[in-house]
Amino acid sequence: MRGLWGLIERAERLHPSKRAFVEGARVEDYATFAARARHLASFLRLRAAADGERVSGLLWNGIDHAAAYYAAAGAGAIFNPLNTRLAPAELAAIAKDCDARLLVSESSFAEVVRAAIKHGAPWREIVWTDKAVDAGLASWTLAQALAEGARAPFRPSARGGDDVAHVYYTSGTTGVPKGVMLTHANVLAHSLGAIGELAIVERDRWAHIAAMFHLADAWATFAFTWVGATHLFLPRFEARAALELMERERATITNLIPTMLNAMAKDEGAGARDWSALRAILSGGAPIAPSLVAQIVDVFGCEYVNTYGMTETSPYLTLSLLKEHHRSLPREEQLAIRAKTGRPYATVELEVCRADGSSVARDEREVGEIRVRGATVMKGYWNKPEETARAFVDGWLSTGDLAVVDAEGYVTIVDRAKDMILSGGENVYSTEVEHALAAHPAVLECAAYGVPDERLGESVRAAVVLRAGRAATAEELVEWVKARLARYKAPKAIDFLEALPRTGSGKIQKSALREPHWSGRARRVN
Amino acid sequence: MRGLWGLIERAERLHPSKRAFVEGARVEDYATFAARARHLASFLRLRAAADGERVSGLLWNGIDHAAAYYAAAGAGAIFNPLNTRLAPAELAAIAKDCDARLLVSESSFAEVVRAAIKHGAPWREIVWTDKAVDAGLASWTLAQALAEGARAPFRPSARGGDDVAHVYYTSGTTGVPKGVMLTHANVLAHSLGAIGELAIVERDRWAHIAAMFHLADAWATFAFTWVGATHLFLPRFEARAALELMERERATITNLIPTMLNAMAKDEGAGARDWSALRAILSGGAPIAPSLVAQIVDVFGCEYVNTYGMTETSPYLTLSLLKEHHRSLPREEQLAIRAKTGRPYATVELEVCRADGSSVARDEREVGEIRVRGATVMKGYWNKPEETARAFVDGWLSTGDLAVVDAEGYVTIVDRAKDMILSGGENVYSTEVEHALAAHPAVLECAAYGVPDERLGESVRAAVVLRAGRAATAEELVEWVKARLARYKAPKAIDFLEALPRTGSGKIQKSALREPHWSGRARRVN
Repeated sequence: MRGLWGLIERAERLHPSKRAFVEGARVEDYATFAARARHLASFLRLRAAADGERVSGLLWNGIDHAAAYYAAAGAGAIFNPLNTRLAPAELAAIAKDCDARLLVSESSFAEVVRAAIKHGAPWREIVWTDKAVDAGLASWTLAQALAEGARAPFRPSARGGDDVAHVYYTSGTTGVPKGVMLTHANVLAHSLGAIGELAIVERDRWAHIAAMFHLADAWATFAFTWVGATHLFLPRFEARAALELMERERATITNLIPTMLNAMAKDEGAGARDWSALRAILSGGAPIAPSLVAQIVDVFGCEYVNTYGMTETSPYLTLSLLKEHHRSLPREEQLAIRAKTGRPYATVELEVCRADGSSVARDEREVGEIRVRGATVMKGYWNKPEETARAFVDGWLSTGDLAVVDAEGYVTIVDRAKDMILSGGENVYSTEVEHALAAHPAVLECAAYGVPDERLGESVRAAVVLRAGRAATAEELVEWVKARLARYKAPKAIDFLEALPRTGSGKIQKSALREPHWSGRARRVN
Repeated sequence: MRGLWGLIERAERLHPSKRAFVEGARVEDYATFAARARHLASFLRLRAAADGERVSGLLWNGIDHAAAYYAAAGAGAIFNPLNTRLAPAELAAIAKDCDARLLVSESSFAEVVRAAIKHGAPWREIVWTDKAVDAGLASWTLAQALAEGARAPFRPSARGGDDVAHVYYTSGTTGVPKGVMLTHANVLAHSLGAIGELAIVERDRWAHIAAMFHLADAWATFAFTWVGATHLFLPRFEARAALELMERERATITNLIPTMLNAMAKDEGAGARDWSALRAILSGGAPIAPSLVAQIVDVFGCEYVNTYGMTETSPYLTLSLLKEHHRSLPREEQLAIRAKTGRPYATVELEVCRADGSSVARDEREVGEIRVRGATVMKGYWNKPEETARAFVDGWLSTGDLAVVDAEGYVTIVDRAKDMILSGGENVYSTEVEHALAAHPAVLECAAYGVPDERLGESVRAAVVLRAGRAATAEELVEWVKARLARYKAPKAIDFLEALPRTGSGKIQKSALREPHWSGRARRVN
């Protein structure tokens, strides 16, 4: 297998009549899906969007989103999935940065697309997957594009291996978005790694609930096609609808963002549904509170796997899978392992390093930075050779994440390097504070971060969203944390919010919480 | 994971105290195995056998054979596994061809090694794994080498990816042996493919019974280490000992050569042993008769997987794994699928091609040549750029194997291109004749091949080994075939032999049968 298009040809030949794509009432088999992807690929080539040209996608989850991924690969184009929550100016900045020639989108984004074009997005043509929309550019409906593509003879592009397949822009919790270049070889290695690690087989049914423009879900588009498994799509997340899809379509496995899991686990009657088909829930895209892990296992009664990854690494870097000898441990101890960040993913060499590059002790106390290397690590940042060079140390990618390692090789992330709070000479890892707060029965969500403090340099502050119908005072929550952690780790102040600010991929955007407190200062640490 | 040494570091960190290597009474855990491999790697570097230098191995199956594979990778050397059945002159020719600097061997090969050196093998130093032997060169026992290596600081070689890891010489059923260069990326991709395809997990126990110098078994050295599974070793094949090892050590999976399976399935009481741990038997390295497949399933009561591969492809190209919808078929139909050559391996794109490169019909009738492409296809032949170029057509490796494809994408090999018999204008595929003969109750083994014929151009001739205590005449066997196949496919003559000539890897050496009939002729087809 040299390129991602090979996966489609494989599934088409081995599983042609398998009804493997389910989106509401729409069901497609692999032969139909492959024919559509082929015609769209052919169309992209006709429109000169081949051989490394960029094609943006601004799409909800669905069969056509998957088809766009494959069509770009077949055409030899580089697919550029766009975050559906971005503002027009942000979309335009990305499309300009990678000079995307074509856009595949749907009519619900018409207004955003028109505004992005006004902001200078360089798209010259648009394919609308549902119906024709005027955006001042040459436009095609998908039906027109498929008909056009079907008329031309098609030969798949020879691109593959170390050629770039995708350029994903990082969600930008801090700084300017950068385009992460993933090659065909990166995505294929990650897929094969996942098939092995998660024992993915043809009878599996993956629920695409997390956003497909983000790698927490997008990787499954490739791994599950490879083995001829089934794809279930939820266009846009809503907790009840996600539960209904998974139950009705007998999903066997999925990867959800912790905030989604939180909402789903708390949905009334979630635990009473039929989860007999479900064998595993993965959580990824953001850290998870151990209290939520226990809740997930209770509600869904299936295996839980914590995941940690980055766009730069295709994405998984660790999975909290158990070893054989763990299976005889009491449930609580198994749960404690599952709630860890995890041990290295199959395709990855992972070191937790001191500043001098040596490895930290495996005592689950000494903190170091995670560095990784392997077949799933990106080729670099689009058009940013200096940033790319800075990201690597001796061939290893520096993740910026701080972690400890236990004697068994399981990593636990204690913080993003940039989220560490330096208070009175002590390192406070914000996740620690957040996990303590999250365990309080009235707390729905929370985020801890550092703010300038005359005396301490920085002090801990937290933003909290309370559960509906529950109350708690700031004093009560501070005491709660003090009862659980060293006193200096307790927040000095708590803000009660209706919701936490989030990035498009669902990560809590700490910069938005932190910035007001730091305005007028040049540095963001004290 | 960039290189094979990364697998050792992974297993050492994640499964240090797992007693994963079993060779008779000797049992080693991953930490011990890794330490030994590291010290041997360090020794190899000290002896300047690093950075692409070749290190030959002439070894029976065992823990030290596995350690030699890994030590070479850690040192950055290219490992050159030697076939233990080769004659001294053949060994010398190989060592000369790849200019191997060091040899790792054991005292039982002392005489052969000395003779190979007389024939010009260029080894300068030898490590003997068991005890010191004089071969006229600088010699070390493994214990000495490990002690020497342990004294030096060791940093694993940076070689990996597309650097060559192994050079295997093809067994030479025809022509001069060629050195197949497999890269670290080839071997890693094959390992990950196998982990996914065969659902290899930590609790698996692989029996190294087929020779480890051959890829039918060697690939497992890497795949099973990757997941922290257990390796069981049988130094030299003997049917009863193989059965005893698998039963006693509760092997879960293995790959055996058809001739081994034949002998094992016929061993008295084989079916009465405890096979409750055994989940799958793979057969590979040579074609298998459908009648033997049925017997294997009866005796071992486990899943049977046919495999087809080549040294040039790391090795698997197809596996006869069932699809989900096959699992509801009657047993006989399932068995018929399992006896096929198989559908493409995960890492491989496979086409069965007409002479013009187009694909044959999927009707299981039209015969074409198998061409393949993918991450597991070799870098080329050692020092043979012309042969390498000839092996590839438009980036696809031509296998020289002739096959048909069914509607489900399963391939059945009908013959090696060079083993096809052209008789009276008709193509006769020798495997077809062999399968018919093998179904006769008195036939233990057989081989069909073409000999010159005044009238027909070529005619079919067969060599047959009868089962102990059974008798059959040539006339009887010819009638048996005629009752089952077109009359022109029946042998015109049958030779009864004590044993069939074989290559070192256990393949029937048809050239040895065919040659006497063709002596004095320039061409080997008529």
